[in-house]
Amino acid sequence: MNDRTSSQRAPRPGKPDQDLYRDSTKETRSARRAFLASTAAGLVGGVIGMDAVTGRAIAAVASEADESDLIVRRQGSFMVGGSVISNPGTFDPYHPTPAGQTFHGDHAYVEYQIPPDARALPLVMWHGAGQFSKTWETTPDGREGYQSVFLRRGFAVYIIDQPRRGNAGRSTVAATINPTPGEMSTFSGFRLGIWPNFFPNVQFSRDPAVLDQYFRQQTPNTGPEVVADGGVVESAVSALFDKIGPGVLLTHSFSGGHGWLTAIRTPNIKGIVSYEPGQFVFPADDMPPVVGAALPNIPVSPTDFAKLTKIPIQIVLGDNIPTSPTGITGLDNWITFKARAYQLRDWLNRRGGDASVLSLPDIGIYGNTHFPFSDLNSLQIADLLSEFLSQKGLDSRDA
Amino acid sequence: MNDRTSSQRAPRPGKPDQDLYRDSTKETRSARRAFLASTAAGLVGGVIGMDAVTGRAIAAVASEADESDLIVRRQGSFMVGGSVISNPGTFDPYHPTPAGQTFHGDHAYVEYQIPPDARALPLVMWHGAGQFSKTWETTPDGREGYQSVFLRRGFAVYIIDQPRRGNAGRSTVAATINPTPGEMSTFSGFRLGIWPNFFPNVQFSRDPAVLDQYFRQQTPNTGPEVVADGGVVESAVSALFDKIGPGVLLTHSFSGGHGWLTAIRTPNIKGIVSYEPGQFVFPADDMPPVVGAALPNIPVSPTDFAKLTKIPIQIVLGDNIPTSPTGITGLDNWITFKARAYQLRDWLNRRGGDASVLSLPDIGIYGNTHFPFSDLNSLQIADLLSEFLSQKGLDSRDA
Repeated sequence: MNDRTSSQRAPRPGKPDQDLYRDSTKETRSARRAFLASTAAGLVGGVIGMDAVTGRAIAAVASEADESDLIVRRQGSFMVGGSVISNPGTFDPYHPTPAGQTFHGDHAYVEYQIPPDARALPLVMWHGAGQFSKTWETTPDGREGYQSVFLRRGFAVYIIDQPRRGNAGRSTVAATINPTPGEMSTFSGFRLGIWPNFFPNVQFSRDPAVLDQYFRQQTPNTGPEVVADGGVVESAVSALFDKIGPGVLLTHSFSGGHGWLTAIRTPNIKGIVSYEPGQFVFPADDMPPVVGAALPNIPVSPTDFAKLTKIPIQIVLGDNIPTSPTGITGLDNWITFKARAYQLRDWLNRRGGDASVLSLPDIGIYGNTHFPFSDLNSLQIADLLSEFLSQKGLDSRDA
Repeated sequence: MNDRTSSQRAPRPGKPDQDLYRDSTKETRSARRAFLASTAAGLVGGVIGMDAVTGRAIAAVASEADESDLIVRRQGSFMVGGSVISNPGTFDPYHPTPAGQTFHGDHAYVEYQIPPDARALPLVMWHGAGQFSKTWETTPDGREGYQSVFLRRGFAVYIIDQPRRGNAGRSTVAATINPTPGEMSTFSGFRLGIWPNFFPNVQFSRDPAVLDQYFRQQTPNTGPEVVADGGVVESAVSALFDKIGPGVLLTHSFSGGHGWLTAIRTPNIKGIVSYEPGQFVFPADDMPPVVGAALPNIPVSPTDFAKLTKIPIQIVLGDNIPTSPTGITGLDNWITFKARAYQLRDWLNRRGGDASVLSLPDIGIYGNTHFPFSDLNSLQIADLLSEFLSQKGLDSRDA
C-alpha cells in the first residue's frame, strides 16, 4: 500500500510541531536528563526500532527490551461494577420465558498481573474508543506492550475492557453493529499518515502485517457509550478502584474524558497519565474559550473540578499534529485536542493543581502516533512514564 | 436466593448417572489410580473445596493449589485469521465516506503465555456459546483457572476469543444485540441446579458473589455464529494452528462442534479434550440413530471423519445429567448430548480411532456442572487432563 502514488493535496506534517500552547520544554528536558542519569542501569543508547521499508535503524536513549523471564505472583481476571435487569414475573423452568429472569451486564472486565514485591500503587490501563485491552498488550509489531513492560518494572497491572466493549460486551441496552469500512480514515485520525502514505518520520512499522494487526485491534461498542459522571463506564471503573484501592490511572484517547470523570468519583485515583486525551472537563463557572467543535468540553461543578487539582496529572501528546488546518477532519481534531490539553493544564494549575503537558516533539522525540505507548519507540515512552511516576512519588514500594 | 422455597416439580438429579451408553469405568478408574501413583509429588489427599451452605468439606485425591510465583518466558496477544471488506471506490481523505475504505474483521483474538522449557505441544483453549476467554482464566470463585494451572504444569497456553465474540468482536456481518433476561434458564442449562435451588452435590460455591461473576462471564455474539467447515470460526482457529504449529485443542460446549470441524481442517491438532461438547460430527454415509432434537448432528465426508480417528480424543462429562426427561429443556438436552458423545466414541473407535468418554460420576467424582474445569474441584479435573495427556504422549518436552 505504501508504494501507491498519492493524489492527495494535503501538506505532509513531519516537522516538530509549533503550537499556540507550549509546555516548558526546557525544564522538562532537563528533568528528564537528570532522571535518566539517575537510573543508568537498564538505560542504553541503542536501536529501539527498525523501519521495515528503509531498514533504517531508529536510535534513541531508551531502555533495552528485557528478555528475561517474567515473574508473576498472581494473575487472573474478574468482572467489576455493572447492573442487573430483574424482569418482573415468575420464572417457570418448564416453560421458560424472560419472565422472572435476570440479566447481568454493564460491568467492566479486568485482567491483572501482580509481580513479587509490587510497588504500592498499581497501574490501571484504560483503552480508547473502538479499542480494548489489546491497546496495552503486545504492540502491533509484536513487541511487549505496557502490560509486560510495567510488570517487569515492578507494578501490578490492571487492564480494563470498559462496559459494552470487548470481553465486557454484555450490555443492558440493545445495540446494532454495522461493519462500516473506515480504516483509511482511522489511518489519518490515529496519525499514521494520510492514506496510503505514512508520515516520513512515523514510529510505525511499514510491514503490511503490522497494519493488519493494528486494524484488527478494534472492536465495536455493544451498547451506547455515554460520557457522564455516573455513566456506566465511569461507574464500573470507579468500582474497580473501590475493589483494588489506590492506584494510578492511564487513559488513552476517548477514555481521557471518562478518566477525568472517574477521578472525580473516586479518591483512589492517585495520579493520571493521559495519552492523547480526546475530551476534557472544566469548571462550569469558568469554561475556557472554545477551541474547535469536536467532542465539546464537559462542564463539571467547581468542587468536582477542584478534585483534579489534588493529584498529579500528565498529558502526553505525540507528533505530526498539524499546526494549521489541513482539511482532514481526523488530523485537524488534534489541533483542537492539543489546544484543550494546554487549557486544562492551565485551568488546573491556576487552581493549585499539578498538571503538565508532555508534547513529545518538544523534547526531541519525533514521529509518535496517537498510540505512543505502542509505537516503535514505546520503551522510550515507557521510560518517560517511569520518570513521571518517580518524580511524583507514585512508584514507591511503601504503602 | 438459595433459601427460597421451590414450587418446582422436577426430580432433583443428584445421584451418579445411569446411562444407555456407559464407558468402561473399571479400566478408566484403574488407569487413573496408576497415574496418580506415578506422580505422587504434588498430589495429595485433601480438601479441595468447601460447600458454602453446609460447610461440608469436599475431599478428593487431587493436586494442591500451587501458590508459588508463575514464571513466564513470553506472553502477549494477537489476532489471527479473518477477512477484509474492501469497499469499491476511491478514498478521499478530505471528504471521507466508506468508498475506497477497508474493514478488517472475523479474526480470532488470542492471548498466550509460554513457560520456560515448555512442553512440545501447547494447549489451545476454546470457549463455548455465549462465553469467551474468561472460561479458562480465574474461576468464578476466584481461584486459578486452566490458564495458570497448565502454565504451571509446563504447557504453553493459548486462549481464544473466537471471531465475533469478546475481544474478537469486529464482525464483517451486522448484528443486533438484545439484552434478554435468561439467567435462570442458564442456571439449569449449565446444571447448577433448578433455579433457585442448587443441586445438593454441585461443585459450585453458594456465595451469591460467585454466581454474579458466573453470570457476567458471558458476552454476546457480534455477528452470526455458523457451525460449518470453512465457517469463519473454524477458519480462524485453523489459522491459529497454522501459525503456532502442532498443539492440543481443548473445547467446551458449543466449541465442541467447531472443534471437530477444525481438526478436520488442520493436521496440527494432535489431540482433543472436549468438555461437554454440544454438537457432533458423523460420516454422511453412516449417520447414527437420531437421539434427541437439539443441535442436530453434522454430516461430514467419510474421508474427513476418518481424520478424527488419527488423533486421541477424550470427551469429559459432568454430573447431574438426568437419566430420564425432566421437562426442563436445558437439562434434558444433556441426555441427548451425552448419548451422542458415546455414539461418537463408538463411531470413531469402530474405524480405528482412539476416543473415550470420561463420565466423571462413573469414576466417583460427583457434582460437576457444565464447566468441570472451573468447578470447585477443578484441580482434580485438571489432574485428569494431565493424566490423559501423559497417557497419549501429548505432554512430552521433546518436539
